[in-house]
Amino acid sequence: MGRTILGAAAVSLDGFIAHEDDSVDPLFDWLGSGDVEWSLSEHDHYPLRTTVASRDFMQAVYAHIGVMMIGRRLFDHTDGWGGTPPAGQHVVVVTHAPPRDWAPAAAAPFTFVTEGVDAAIATAQELAGDRDVDVAAGQVGGQALRRGLIDQVVMNVVPVVFGTGRSFFGVPEGGTPVRLGDPTRLVAGDRVTHLLYDVPPESRRGAPQDA
Amino acid sequence: MGRTILGAAAVSLDGFIAHEDDSVDPLFDWLGSGDVEWSLSEHDHYPLRTTVASRDFMQAVYAHIGVMMIGRRLFDHTDGWGGTPPAGQHVVVVTHAPPRDWAPAAAAPFTFVTEGVDAAIATAQELAGDRDVDVAAGQVGGQALRRGLIDQVVMNVVPVVFGTGRSFFGVPEGGTPVRLGDPTRLVAGDRVTHLLYDVPPESRRGAPQDA
Repeated sequence: MGRTILGAAAVSLDGFIAHEDDSVDPLFDWLGSGDVEWSLSEHDHYPLRTTVASRDFMQAVYAHIGVMMIGRRLFDHTDGWGGTPPAGQHVVVVTHAPPRDWAPAAAAPFTFVTEGVDAAIATAQELAGDRDVDVAAGQVGGQALRRGLIDQVVMNVVPVVFGTGRSFFGVPEGGTPVRLGDPTRLVAGDRVTHLLYDVPPESRRGAPQDA
Repeated sequence: MGRTILGAAAVSLDGFIAHEDDSVDPLFDWLGSGDVEWSLSEHDHYPLRTTVASRDFMQAVYAHIGVMMIGRRLFDHTDGWGGTPPAGQHVVVVTHAPPRDWAPAAAAPFTFVTEGVDAAIATAQELAGDRDVDVAAGQVGGQALRRGLIDQVVMNVVPVVFGTGRSFFGVPEGGTPVRLGDPTRLVAGDRVTHLLYDVPPESRRGAPQDA
């Protein structure tokens, strides 16, 4: 089984992945300001332009993505990317109610899961097989981490302080802190610093605090 | 004039310097688990034990502290460290009302400023002279950053996700995002990652967005 990787394109120094109105300026500046052009997927219509260091970090982390798992907010905000997953072959959407009038629904490789985060992760991992699941940060991703369902956390930290916004780790309903390991990778980019964390076994499902 | 440095002993991966009840576990683990013993000041009763890399980073950043500036919460929580500044020669406390019955008040090198953050920074810098001012993160420190009064930001990031707690940057009353530079130093410790940011001129007092 592949890994579950919690991440976002970028996070502010104070932990926000978007403003309250879902705008992101200047979080995505690092994705368009560099010297080398690349993409994570053949579906990417807008290639990225970053430093070599950022490209190498991102390509290593996301080399084996099979499935993306997202919340309903990101799905609605991107309109499901028109039915084409931006990474991997399949998208799992966690939602209370699947969209009824989404045009690409029949043809698109999207699965809507209404039974919560645990069921969504199970579905995503089944679809991914040996490949990894990219779990989008935010309310759903944070919940997955707190429920012990995440193997790695990727933070692309942009040097800006938002003050308010949408939190990378979501807003918890309670529970104990989640301890991670020290970063296994630490990479300086341009307008971004990349950190990759492993979630240790004691913070994953089956550990005493999850019982 | 010295620099104003915004920092805290530690910050969680999601930006908290303490839990809601002011406890900090496990944020301070990195300060006691290392091989080398050191202190930032001759007043330190409890020497720190960290890696060499962490000691070198901290001693370089805090080599020239003349004055600490703190909010009323930290003052109350530590009872003003019994009247002895843990770093530097003087402490400036931002408060709506100075304590009336604080025993060391007459002898201790503490100044209580009731006219807000701008006045407190001015007082601290006057007292510090050529030396630096260590501005404690939290509500007062975050306000100082947003008001363009901070030169550097130190983040000692501990790999733990709190979910809730007391924010490093405080809770803003509004305002625009504050852009920093990329980290000028990036140091891996044990249970901590150190990042040092410069605040660029356009995010400091006098810049158009502060007008």
